[in-house]
Amino acid sequence: MIKIVGVGPAKGYLTERAIKEIERAEVVYGSRRAVELAEKYIKGEKVTISKFDHETYRRIEEVGRKRRVVVLSTGDPMVSGLGKRIDGEVEPGISSVQLALARLKVDLTEVVVIDWHTDECMDDVLKAFEMGRDALILANSRSNVKKLSELANVVVLENLGYESERICENCEIKSDLVILFAKRR
Amino acid sequence: MIKIVGVGPAKGYLTERAIKEIERAEVVYGSRRAVELAEKYIKGEKVTISKFDHETYRRIEEVGRKRRVVVLSTGDPMVSGLGKRIDGEVEPGISSVQLALARLKVDLTEVVVIDWHTDECMDDVLKAFEMGRDALILANSRSNVKKLSELANVVVLENLGYESERICENCEIKSDLVILFAKRR
Repeated sequence: MIKIVGVGPAKGYLTERAIKEIERAEVVYGSRRAVELAEKYIKGEKVTISKFDHETYRRIEEVGRKRRVVVLSTGDPMVSGLGKRIDGEVEPGISSVQLALARLKVDLTEVVVIDWHTDECMDDVLKAFEMGRDALILANSRSNVKKLSELANVVVLENLGYESERICENCEIKSDLVILFAKRR
Repeated sequence: MIKIVGVGPAKGYLTERAIKEIERAEVVYGSRRAVELAEKYIKGEKVTISKFDHETYRRIEEVGRKRRVVVLSTGDPMVSGLGKRIDGEVEPGISSVQLALARLKVDLTEVVVIDWHTDECMDDVLKAFEMGRDALILANSRSNVKKLSELANVVVLENLGYESERICENCEIKSDLVILFAKRR
């Protein structure tokens, strides 16, 4: 049996249900960061995933046929997470999108959430604006804020939930844990 | 000081941070359902909110100037919740939107989340489709599924996280705890 468990964006965000699932697992898979966030509740075998590819996912599914497996996903498994990539039941976690909305005091129904790993990001931002919504963008340190700034006022939200959390307007991105809030002018 | 704390959609979804905030509060406000979900961690005074209006929110803010106040919000305070209505720091919670995505195995970046309490819902659904996205709609038992079915395949997701959870396609809504997934044809 496989449970894909969201561990939240930083320490302290595990839910009661997530903790129970982690404690009961015979094998726990996750990235280094995900394992760190869940560490104190892991009782079974601990396997750090370094390669996130099809082969790894199929191997985990194979183990899941015989043993009680938990796959940790930072944030929420259904926010650009592992939920769609591995066959298993999903246990939600707090995503960095939620922390961004909390800091900005913006409701989820006022934005469109966009994953900036495609060329269409600017198109999607414009479409969100046409809908009368702002855009919340899952980005990384290579994302071109300058280009986005031509279309919108941009708030950079980095390392949310960590001590190094940083929120600034029209500034440079310094971290890979980053969300951009593009607000229509 | 006021913290607006998300308590999740059902039992077991409180985060470690939310639990700490609830335990430390001198006064805890919330709807009957929200108080029920947090009950076992409340140590201070417990006040059930029955009227969700401007006056109530201002009174809570007044108390927050002198005492450590927690306002409970079912789900996440930034998903059609209390986060925007009360002045205070937001502590995220798991929303029913996340449970819906988990059950459907759909990513947040593939949908537009819409609050069906306006006439524009159908317009917004069509705009989501034009963006190439499906729509996830926060609805209630009075929402007109038939009308929506003319535009889309509709999955009804009710009482998510409860024993009475029910997921069915193009069926009638029986509960006020309901989310509709409108999938473009």
